[in-house]
Amino acid sequence: MRRGSTSRRPVERVTVGPDGAARRTRDDQLAVEEPREIRIIRAEDADRPADEAAHRVSVTMRTPGADFELAAGFLYGEGLIGGAAAIASIRYCTDAEQQYNVVNVRLAPGAPFDPAALSRNFYATSSCGVCGKASIEAVMGPACARIDSAMDVDPAVLVALPEKLRQAQRVFERTGGLHAAAQFTAGGALVSIREDVGRHNAMDKLVGAALLAGEVPLAESIVLVSGRTSFELVQKAARAGVPVLAGVSAPSSLAVELAEQAGMTLAGFVRDPGFNVYAGGARLARRLPQGVGG
Amino acid sequence: MRRGSTSRRPVERVTVGPDGAARRTRDDQLAVEEPREIRIIRAEDADRPADEAAHRVSVTMRTPGADFELAAGFLYGEGLIGGAAAIASIRYCTDAEQQYNVVNVRLAPGAPFDPAALSRNFYATSSCGVCGKASIEAVMGPACARIDSAMDVDPAVLVALPEKLRQAQRVFERTGGLHAAAQFTAGGALVSIREDVGRHNAMDKLVGAALLAGEVPLAESIVLVSGRTSFELVQKAARAGVPVLAGVSAPSSLAVELAEQAGMTLAGFVRDPGFNVYAGGARLARRLPQGVGG
Repeated sequence: MRRGSTSRRPVERVTVGPDGAARRTRDDQLAVEEPREIRIIRAEDADRPADEAAHRVSVTMRTPGADFELAAGFLYGEGLIGGAAAIASIRYCTDAEQQYNVVNVRLAPGAPFDPAALSRNFYATSSCGVCGKASIEAVMGPACARIDSAMDVDPAVLVALPEKLRQAQRVFERTGGLHAAAQFTAGGALVSIREDVGRHNAMDKLVGAALLAGEVPLAESIVLVSGRTSFELVQKAARAGVPVLAGVSAPSSLAVELAEQAGMTLAGFVRDPGFNVYAGGARLARRLPQGVGG
Repeated sequence: MRRGSTSRRPVERVTVGPDGAARRTRDDQLAVEEPREIRIIRAEDADRPADEAAHRVSVTMRTPGADFELAAGFLYGEGLIGGAAAIASIRYCTDAEQQYNVVNVRLAPGAPFDPAALSRNFYATSSCGVCGKASIEAVMGPACARIDSAMDVDPAVLVALPEKLRQAQRVFERTGGLHAAAQFTAGGALVSIREDVGRHNAMDKLVGAALLAGEVPLAESIVLVSGRTSFELVQKAARAGVPVLAGVSAPSSLAVELAEQAGMTLAGFVRDPGFNVYAGGARLARRLPQGVGG
């Protein structure tokens, strides 16, 4: 059964007052969270049954919707595909039960894919994990070169983005449970927005949509995320060539280090009337008064 | 180098006003995020070098601090160990570079551990992923029976918990970047609190601390989480026997389904003066007026 990104259900609302607690039943919207498996099928295995030929890549909890974009963005972000040209098709698995929770990505003839890379990929992340600085370089590697963009950003544009995100993010307002990632032009016009219970998924969906549309690298874009900015979000944005990543809340220490190394502008606590700049301030400095402040 | 859970660094604060943007440099606190690998070493491999004998279990981004509790809680939550008795010791890997980012968990003699379970475990999650209801039963399984607790909860106690969490959560106030999980008594007294950039890690740390102290199942506890309540958070809490899980924000659809099946009380949007009850309302009903509301 195909399900939407929200579901209604009755909840009890309890209110505590001076005279004790009262309750009433009302309908509430919940963000749907469901497991989703991504599988890769190589071109040379196209004639074999999908169940035999498929390589299981990952199972993650996600909000249904934009599943193909999510798959494309995830595979690209992990470096398992080099671009949209590697993809021949993306379809739901047609087995009865699993219909909408398994996504089969069929690779184009000649697209490089090494099944052993799935475990190596794990170990790449793993060795990334265990050696601090060196790990970041390993993760950045050839697949994620320094961001090449001459774009600069007007602080007045940046500070206005969260309100635009909120206006666009209808689901969030109903459920309070969905993260969002949104792509804007340098002038602050909304290009696209994707939502998910997981903020990494929202970013994968956003990048995947751009990838499938042939628009990666996003060298002239600002991406705004609704929550905290983690290392992995910077990693995914850097891989997609995003020059300016902005978060409504705080970044982590490692997110800042990676943004610096990638040449990305990283802003946090973006809330009218201001924001913090953690890395790549040069893109903003051109629009800022010189010699003001410290 | 051992690092704390926050780090200071200079940031540029940009403020946009009617006369243009101004900036000043100031020091900011960031939540530290670093990779951490958990490895298991069986008792019969105790005399072999750790690098050869260790089974790599997982690499996750986490905030340093409570690393041993995190390891214990994670392994317990995943069903890879049956309890604290399975653990002989938990230590940082003593290799130079990796010192504080690799945690070796040595198992007690006789503690069951099947290296193949690591991949099977993946597939358990995986097949969980692909079949809706059946998956939840598979995940719940024998390791996670229905919660056995006669505890009930006073709504006035529940509604007061977020303020207690905020008061206890000093790091959060400084960085804005850390999630928290906190354990309270049925009467609302704070028992313990753990923080992390990842909310699942915060829960693992909390459960791990209780496990190592011999206090699992937490049959008389309320656990409050700072963010949204996902399926995995309910899963970890259910495994630890927590009868009441409360979140400051919204739960997902699957979190509610699992809480219902586990017999757990799940509250969301807990913010003075009220909250929503998504599952297990009976524990609250005893303290609520009958026949009031709908």
